[in-house]
Amino acid sequence: MTYLTDERVAVLGAAGAIGSNLAQSILQLGISGNVVMYDPFAQGLEGAAEELYHCGIPGANVTWTSDIGEALTGTSYVISSGGAPRREGMTREDLRRDNSEIAKGLGQDIKKYAPNLKFLVVIFNPADITGLTALVHSGLPPSNVSTLAALDSTRLQTALAQKFGVRQDKVTGCRTYGGHGEKMAVFIGTIKIDGKPLAQYLQEGILSASDWEEIQAHVRNGGARIIQLRGRSSFQSPAHVSAMMVKSVVDGSDFPWPSGAYIKDGDHKGIMMAADTTLDKRGVSYRIPDGSPEDLAALKDSAEHLASLRDQTIADGILPPLNEWKRYNPHL
Amino acid sequence: MTYLTDERVAVLGAAGAIGSNLAQSILQLGISGNVVMYDPFAQGLEGAAEELYHCGIPGANVTWTSDIGEALTGTSYVISSGGAPRREGMTREDLRRDNSEIAKGLGQDIKKYAPNLKFLVVIFNPADITGLTALVHSGLPPSNVSTLAALDSTRLQTALAQKFGVRQDKVTGCRTYGGHGEKMAVFIGTIKIDGKPLAQYLQEGILSASDWEEIQAHVRNGGARIIQLRGRSSFQSPAHVSAMMVKSVVDGSDFPWPSGAYIKDGDHKGIMMAADTTLDKRGVSYRIPDGSPEDLAALKDSAEHLASLRDQTIADGILPPLNEWKRYNPHL
Repeated sequence: MTYLTDERVAVLGAAGAIGSNLAQSILQLGISGNVVMYDPFAQGLEGAAEELYHCGIPGANVTWTSDIGEALTGTSYVISSGGAPRREGMTREDLRRDNSEIAKGLGQDIKKYAPNLKFLVVIFNPADITGLTALVHSGLPPSNVSTLAALDSTRLQTALAQKFGVRQDKVTGCRTYGGHGEKMAVFIGTIKIDGKPLAQYLQEGILSASDWEEIQAHVRNGGARIIQLRGRSSFQSPAHVSAMMVKSVVDGSDFPWPSGAYIKDGDHKGIMMAADTTLDKRGVSYRIPDGSPEDLAALKDSAEHLASLRDQTIADGILPPLNEWKRYNPHL
Repeated sequence: MTYLTDERVAVLGAAGAIGSNLAQSILQLGISGNVVMYDPFAQGLEGAAEELYHCGIPGANVTWTSDIGEALTGTSYVISSGGAPRREGMTREDLRRDNSEIAKGLGQDIKKYAPNLKFLVVIFNPADITGLTALVHSGLPPSNVSTLAALDSTRLQTALAQKFGVRQDKVTGCRTYGGHGEKMAVFIGTIKIDGKPLAQYLQEGILSASDWEEIQAHVRNGGARIIQLRGRSSFQSPAHVSAMMVKSVVDGSDFPWPSGAYIKDGDHKGIMMAADTTLDKRGVSYRIPDGSPEDLAALKDSAEHLASLRDQTIADGILPPLNEWKRYNPHL
């Protein structure tokens, strides 16, 4: 087995379903054989690590620890799925506050133990806010921090492929921007099915407006649907896709989906959101996507929603006020 | 993404933890992009398939079905994790009988829908018996049927690496033969740690006889220990390792662990057990392992245990009497 890098990848939340799959994916995809698994739940962590040992993968050097300093020191890449899941009776607000608090701790730990970290991917929800919070507190350049934002786009690709009865990769250019889930902005302009623009299918009435609405609603509920079908929230796709994000940063290979990026200026300044991103050895770079007036209005709406969540996180005292960010992170 | 083959791989039991991980592993390892997922539990199956779609893997052509004929027709490789797990209050005997019945159905389905199948890997326990039962009823040549038998060996490698504080792949030649788990036969002769034979460490007293006993006991309980640590039975390692078995048959790459093989003649004739096997494009071939008189006595004991389980399965009417096997499978 050969690996793209010898540098160490840390998986935070590695005892969980996403994290343990992630550690396996990093090895199977040949990204790095040097993987450290971190989780506060030591017993489950050891079980997950033992499973990877039992795979008997040549060249693998898997370690595990419940000490975050040990996990981060000497590590080049971090993927964190280590938030709390949304439990029964918990509102979205509770989830945001609790997980932002965890993200703040993650940022502070990175500042302390891995100030030169090459790349951080934050998975845990709401990732736009937890990723932003980790970025502000970490002191890392914005190019070194991203969030998993691709699943709405891959779910849209899936739904269109099923609707049109074509193989999934015959549907290209599916990109949703802004926030994740209910507030995502679907950009229609780039989508093609078997080379023909989706807009044409709509114009020609081959796809009706109500079918298209239904497909978008289906995508918005993509996560809830997995829970319904499997009795548990999605874990294989977040693990695979975030591992592929790190792969692109390690070897410069194309990552064809939107990722989360910190927006430095312009209308959407000061939030993290799914943008038209490129991942390569320099980390994440972005362009604000261009689209029809409707597309851009949807993006504006989504970005404003994210700004309001950010402001609540500031009001909670978890993020500092905007004008103090530079003190926490000179790159902002 | 490029794949080693275009031929189709069927994962049976694909809604479960092992099966869904297997389907992902076959894609991630680049074995085949052409994967059919089968499970009688249609809802969970759809959820697992959707997760793979949401990975957005280029070139992947994943389908799912609860119709076994559809899953097997046109398929070249099958991995079946589709037995019942051992439930509370269920004896080992109950498990053997129930799962042998499932394996009989699997063999009959293969005879009907995929009589030219290139390779079948049976994972579900007791795999030595379920694999044998599937082989007899399938009519396939014995070279085309194997069982997952490597995990005792990888667990032994893990335990020795931890004991000696070396990286896992510095421990070589760990091979357990015969049956799986409690009745496995550990062959000491081939094991080296950092190039030095284990036997020497024992002779020199660097590893005490009681420590070595303890390590073997630890390995025998390897599966139970995962349940204890994770609250669920092992799924990542069976998935990864059985995917690697198929990889070796697809591309001829080395599979360094023992696999299950049908023993055609000699003392252990008429059982399936972990032997000194090679996996390549011709499927599985074996040699009866050679070892010290103690090693061979342990193997004999293990093989006799498997023969008695086979005879019980014959008595249950799930396997035909030995002298009728040729009628079911002319290759035996």
